This record gives sequence, structure tokens and C-alpha cells, in this order.
Amino acid sequence: MSPAPSPSLSHRQQIVRGELASRGLDALVITSLPNILYLTNFCGSSAIVVLTAERLLFITDSRYVTVLAETRGTPHACPNLEVVTVDGSYDATLAALLASQPGRRIGFEAAHLTVDRYRWLTATVAANGPKEADLVATERLVERARVRKDPCEIATLREAARRLSRVASAAPAEVRRGLTERDVALAIDRRVRQAGFERSAFETIVASGPNAALPHARPGERTVTEGDLVVLDFGGVYDSYCVDLTRTFSVGSASARARQVHAAVREARDCAIAAVAPGRSRFDIDAAARDTLGRHGLGEAFGHGTGHGLGIEVHEDPRISRRWPDVDTEDEELASGMVFTIEPGAYLPGWGGVRIEDDVLVTDTGVEVLTDVTTELIEI
Amino acid sequence: MSPAPSPSLSHRQQIVRGELASRGLDALVITSLPNILYLTNFCGSSAIVVLTAERLLFITDSRYVTVLAETRGTPHACPNLEVVTVDGSYDATLAALLASQPGRRIGFEAAHLTVDRYRWLTATVAANGPKEADLVATERLVERARVRKDPCEIATLREAARRLSRVASAAPAEVRRGLTERDVALAIDRRVRQAGFERSAFETIVASGPNAALPHARPGERTVTEGDLVVLDFGGVYDSYCVDLTRTFSVGSASARARQVHAAVREARDCAIAAVAPGRSRFDIDAAARDTLGRHGLGEAFGHGTGHGLGIEVHEDPRISRRWPDVDTEDEELASGMVFTIEPGAYLPGWGGVRIEDDVLVTDTGVEVLTDVTTELIEI
Repeated sequence: MSPAPSPSLSHRQQIVRGELASRGLDALVITSLPNILYLTNFCGSSAIVVLTAERLLFITDSRYVTVLAETRGTPHACPNLEVVTVDGSYDATLAALLASQPGRRIGFEAAHLTVDRYRWLTATVAANGPKEADLVATERLVERARVRKDPCEIATLREAARRLSRVASAAPAEVRRGLTERDVALAIDRRVRQAGFERSAFETIVASGPNAALPHARPGERTVTEGDLVVLDFGGVYDSYCVDLTRTFSVGSASARARQVHAAVREARDCAIAAVAPGRSRFDIDAAARDTLGRHGLGEAFGHGTGHGLGIEVHEDPRISRRWPDVDTEDEELASGMVFTIEPGAYLPGWGGVRIEDDVLVTDTGVEVLTDVTTELIEI
Repeated sequence: MSPAPSPSLSHRQQIVRGELASRGLDALVITSLPNILYLTNFCGSSAIVVLTAERLLFITDSRYVTVLAETRGTPHACPNLEVVTVDGSYDATLAALLASQPGRRIGFEAAHLTVDRYRWLTATVAANGPKEADLVATERLVERARVRKDPCEIATLREAARRLSRVASAAPAEVRRGLTERDVALAIDRRVRQAGFERSAFETIVASGPNAALPHARPGERTVTEGDLVVLDFGGVYDSYCVDLTRTFSVGSASARARQVHAAVREARDCAIAAVAPGRSRFDIDAAARDTLGRHGLGEAFGHGTGHGLGIEVHEDPRISRRWPDVDTEDEELASGMVFTIEPGAYLPGWGGVRIEDDVLVTDTGVEVLTDVTTELIEI
């Protein structure tokens, strides 16, 4: 329920150091802020970390030096962090640091460095550093560690999901006839913040009536109207961790069709959750939801994936999706400590739609649902 | 006050096509969403544009195809837009498109493509496309066009700044003794949304008492207390354009020191604004603010730059900053249509700080201040 304790940070760093060693890398340049937060508890907006077998060099600018100094000696301090204050620009400071290091094979995060920064760094390090220095592209070295949450992260996500469920149970009071989707979104955002979240995890979706047929509708000027289905999809960031939840309500008495579609989506959710266990393929979980909707004649109405991992980012691994034959060559098994959403939906253009989303944790033996699962279609 | 009219989009696209022609490029792959919005009015979260001398190929996924279809035939439709629906993944669709194009020299945005995507694209296009196809790094081809706003953008920014100024004048009512910084931030965010903004442009800063000495403080649990200076820095996104404003208030009677520092920062702001005119160097504007603070013995207390451009992004060119001798080899002159912030500050560790920020437009003859400039230090 607070930043990771120092021993957890050490453990995370050791996992990444193991990845470096197995690849013959002398260092890893970490430019992804979520990865930096994971390894150091730093939640500012600018930093670069250079991790070696022995050291953790932390490049940041003067405005964060004070903040870092204040954490020193606390139970959440990053162990062995050495601050390097930016001189000129971040990349110039990094290049100077790399040029002065003995390491030759320096990994960088290929998914988090743009081509222009890479070219500039390569040229600058080559001009000033040891001739043998080589920048080596790496993929997901830190992300791989992040997929399985440790006990401290699980405690944070559990508490975050509990708080978001409270917001969800209060949400029907905010869906009032005559309010615009934007008004409702604003009210939900206020409740998210009042529930102790630092901020919303993404732009809240309020999709009413025919707009509910658009999975990623942005809240607009349409007013909530008798007979609407209203999809509310919102999330919060709590102690730097994201949770995400969707509920669909009926404004007034639901039609028979609305009840059928809601029941089918609920069943898809239940089947997907029931399929979650360590060792299962992530594609199986998607298939459990998709096949259920297909049995109700709603297979075509479900165009997106069934879920996504949650953590420091609101969309991370594992992706609970269909297998794309050419792309998904490797399967990935679920393992304890993974946290992700289950969010089947059915979207019928012109009519509307339903989505229900809950957050789950893979346990040693099966699944723990972190959000408060709802059953009936609520009529407002 | 609405998306750009179709002729403006045509004009913007022609400017970028001129850049392509002058570099001997057959096409430009645009992966930056702000750049895509600028050229097409698309404000969704996923798209890639391939611009050639004749065509504008727009890769997006099924959820946005309906949205695009609805704009067709309207005064804000993107001219000649050809939709390519994603098949598999965005990059696979792009690679297939590039492999099927006759163009040989294909520019990409080096600042907006990661090394891993670049490598995958290069390898895939080489394996499937014409042998001669070459992916060429480009820098700021669209951004350069975006620096000078056109009349439609200026109208939007003017209206946005007017609305944000209204929020600022109501802000003192929200800074109440006993509220936490977080409470105040929440109240400001609510006012920003009620003023018609789509969302806040960044996380609102409420820095009270000693926290006001940290330029990028995040709102926390500290309560607003008699005698505090409170820095409020907030922004809004209005019709996709960002404005940004800072005010510093005194809770109760201001000390003589607080009045002095506030007056010095105000004078720095006034001197910087007075220096704005077409043809002036952006470094001169920074120097006008910095020298003023220096004369008041506050030169060391002002660690950040004087301002940043505003537009589709909240931080864009021009950067109103000190000249870094090795980095800023080219000077950039201000030109009419540029819109940026002027935000000098003075930060005194342990004591507190002051920042004042307004938004300005460079006109043909000088400057127009878009926000309502304030004079006295307001005591709450």
C-alpha cells in the first residue's frame, strides 16, 4: 500500500542483472519510466538509469535531486542508487557517462528509445568513448520481470481494486437522465479521486444509447435518456498502480434484448474467469469468453481482445487475446502473480452495447477476482 | 473553435509535401498522433498516415472506421483521405502497404519511431517489397509546420486561453485554509472541465508553503495554511489545443519578502512579454526574464526555462530557454503565429516560491497576450 520496500527493489534489480549476465551485457540503459519506477520507486517524469552488475547510476535533473535525497535512509529507498545530475541534456549526460564506463556491450531498450536518440547516442559514444563500446538492442528485459507481481504489488492492486469497486457501486447515482455523457464522466472522475486515487488511469468512457456500440467512445454531449444502455469504463492510479473496471447500466426498465445481451456478456466473463489458472494459455482465456458469446450469436459483436495486464501501466502484459497465427508464434502460459482484466463485450451498431470488466489475479492454485463481481443488470 | 476546415488541412498537407519534394522523398510515414491530428483532424488514439505527393493513406482499426466515415462530406473532412483498415497489426499493415507502393525513398519520423519498430519494418519491407525501398530518417517535417499557427488554430487557442483565464480568476475561491493540496487540485480540475475543456492538459500543480520551492511539485497531503504562498499551475485541452497558466496566491497577508519576490517575478514576466516580436531570438526572451530576476538577486532562484510552445501538445516548439552553447547551434527567430508560455519563477528552498505564467501569440507587429494578465499579489 506504499512504495516497494528496499529489499523488493534489490530483488527486482537482481532479476534484471541476471538477464544482463545471460546476454553478456555489461550494462543496461533504462529509458522507460515505468521500468525505472519498478526498479527504483522513482515516480518523477524524467530520469535515465544505467544498471550494471554492481551499480545503479541514476541520471536526473536538479528538481528531482531533493526528492531523491529525502527518500534516503527510509524503508523505501532505492539501494545503492548513485545520482548523476543532468549536465546540458539528459542524452548528453548519458553519452558522457557511457563514454567513461569500462563496459563494452551496453544494452538499451529498443521499445523505448527512438531512432533519432539512438543514432545520436551511438555517434556520440563512438566519438568520445572506448572504440569497442557497442549499443545492443534488448527487448522487454524489465517488462518480463514486471509481468508477475510481487507481494507488495499484489497488496497495492488488491486495495486499488477494492477502492475502484466502491466507486463502481456508487456509479448508478451519477447516471441521471438529462445529464450529458461528459457530465457523468466528470462525476465519475471526481469519485475516483475522492476514493484516494492519484488520478484516472485513462480518459473515462461514458457511452450511452447507440454510442455504447463504440468500444472506445469518448464522452460527448449526448444526454442520458430513458431506455439507454450506458457503458461506464474507468480506472484509477493508486500508489502508481492501475486498475480498470467497466459496468453497463440500463436507464429505466431494460428491454428483453438488453437483458439477453447483458446476460451473455456476463456469462462470457464468468467463463473466462473460470478458465484462469497457472499453466493455462492466455489464448484459452480469450477463447472461453469468445466461444461463449459465439454460442449466443454474438461472436461477431465482440471485436476486441478479452483483457490486458495491469500494473504500473494500464495496458501491459499479458495480453488476453486471440492468437494471430503469424504473430503469436510463442505461447505464454499464465503464472501466479499475473494481474489482468477480463472484459468481454457485445457491440451492435445502431442499437448499443454491453461491456463488463473485472480485474483478476492468478494465484498458485487458480484465480482471485480483485473487483466486486456484479450479477444482475442494474436498472437506474 | 472547431476542427480545422478542409482547406486548412489541404494547405498543411501541401507544406509537408513541399518538404518531401525538397528532400527527394517519395512518401512520409507519420506515426506521431499530434502530427496526424494536425494533418487530418483525427483525434483517436491509433493511426498511421502515409503521405505521398498525391495521396494520403490512413491506416486505422475498425473502431475508428465508423468515426471517419461520419466526418466525410462535412466542412472538416480530411481531403482525399483513403482508409486502410488494419489487418493483423498496425505495423504489419504498414509494411504490406509500403511493400506494395512504387516509392523507393520512404521517410519516417525518427523522433516518433522506436528502434524495435524501425528494425522490424526495415526487415519486413526488405523481405517483401521492392529491393530498392529505403527507409530514410527525417526530423520535424510536420513539427516545423506546426510551430506557426494558422488562423483557425489561433482562434481556438485564443478562446481556450480566455476560458482558462476565467478558471484562474475563480481559483482563489478554491484555495481554502485546511484543504489539502490534493483537494485544491481536484477543485481546479473540476473547474477546468466545467469551463468546457476536454481534460486537463497535465497533472495540476498545487504547491503550498515550502512545497512552492519545487517547480514540479505534485499535489500532496499538505494542508493550505495561513501565511503560505500557493502556486497553482494548470492547463486545459480545448478542441484538441492546449493552454497553460500559473498563478501564485498568498494565504492571508503576504510578508514583505513574498511581495518582493512576487513583484520581481511579475516584472520578469512583463519584460519577457515586452521582448516578444517577430524576428527576435527565442533566447532573447529568456534573457529578458532571467536578467530581470538577476537584478533582483533571484537569478539563481530561477532554474528552468522561461517558456514553451503551445498547440496540439502542451510542450512544443519554440522552447524559450537559455542557449546551451554546444547544443543550440542554430538560432531560431520568432515569427508571427507562434504561441508559447512566459513563465518565470523564483524558488527558495525551505521558504517557498512564486511562478507566474501567461500565454502569448506572436503577431505581425509584436505580441498579443492571450491570458488575462494579473498584477497584484492576491491575498486570500
